[in-house]
Amino acid sequence: MANRVVTIGRQCGSGGHTIGKLVAQRLGVDFYDKKIVELTAAKTKLSPDFIRSHGEYFHGGAIGHIIGYGTRFGSGALKTGSALTDQLQQAQSEILLEAAAKGPCVIVGRCADCVLAGKADTLNVFIHSEMSFKIERSIAEHGLEREKAASILARRDKARAQHYRFYTDQRWGDARHYDLCLDSGRLGVESCVALIAEAYRCMG
Amino acid sequence: MANRVVTIGRQCGSGGHTIGKLVAQRLGVDFYDKKIVELTAAKTKLSPDFIRSHGEYFHGGAIGHIIGYGTRFGSGALKTGSALTDQLQQAQSEILLEAAAKGPCVIVGRCADCVLAGKADTLNVFIHSEMSFKIERSIAEHGLEREKAASILARRDKARAQHYRFYTDQRWGDARHYDLCLDSGRLGVESCVALIAEAYRCMG
Repeated sequence: MANRVVTIGRQCGSGGHTIGKLVAQRLGVDFYDKKIVELTAAKTKLSPDFIRSHGEYFHGGAIGHIIGYGTRFGSGALKTGSALTDQLQQAQSEILLEAAAKGPCVIVGRCADCVLAGKADTLNVFIHSEMSFKIERSIAEHGLEREKAASILARRDKARAQHYRFYTDQRWGDARHYDLCLDSGRLGVESCVALIAEAYRCMG
Repeated sequence: MANRVVTIGRQCGSGGHTIGKLVAQRLGVDFYDKKIVELTAAKTKLSPDFIRSHGEYFHGGAIGHIIGYGTRFGSGALKTGSALTDQLQQAQSEILLEAAAKGPCVIVGRCADCVLAGKADTLNVFIHSEMSFKIERSIAEHGLEREKAASILARRDKARAQHYRFYTDQRWGDARHYDLCLDSGRLGVESCVALIAEAYRCMG
């Protein structure tokens, strides 16, 4: 399992970030989530705010997402968006490839499953759960207002799904694109960590 | 975990039947797959051939699948198909409910996740894998001709997906409808069994 990368796609509020962090701790490997924002900012000079807001989210009005269609990450070429979103996507992809080349690690989000397809040994995971679980977690962990939580989480997931679809030509959350998909609400965060670590070992 | 039911949706050739059987053995619980055909035949007097060919597969030309739309299993009512397919669906659903009431078990296919939703404590699993893995398994296990295997498997999965969609209003293989989804080709059949058994224990 030299340099195997665990990629974690996740619904907002499902605990994917926490699960990824705990998996990295358990496996004793590097963890990339918010760190990707810093690395991308250093590489591109784009602002961290822009990277956070556009690095994983489709923006309906953003011209970057409605101009042109190219090919998938897997074929080595990016889709054609606006100059800025393309630059961001390209930089993030380079950072993920550098991370994978450096050593085994856990990467959360950023279409890492597709960016690394054919270029690294990956265990691709998707974490999801029922809205009620995500609402409670988001209130407890991020202080979301209860009244607004459901609509905020749904909007963010929609933007993530559209971003993923645009850049990968795949359906976000379709089990067939992942090695392992887990309902964190039903199984529990700790059990998800254990199951991912077990799957990592299973792959030899 | 009194009477917990493991439901297994699976792509053709992915090893879902074998995995289900091994999970049942490991947990020491009853196993329902082909047995459902016998039980349904006894209950309905429909022929085993008809049950096998219509119990999980949508038939494009079958009037039963194009007449009328009702409500989902979850709400307690069946969709309205033809008299025969409705009778089959109703009988299969009753058998699944009786099986779940009888004791903990593993049930393969038959939209069991939706039939039992809200009526039993379930661990809902979906098994899938790449076509190359499914082809090799189908040749080895069922003697499919190599030249025809890919098209036969794809056609069967399409029919299963349409049947599932028609009777559940859900997308077959969408991770968000299952507790656990596994790529049996990537993880291996034995590891899938171990991960399902572990998830079963995790749920307490």
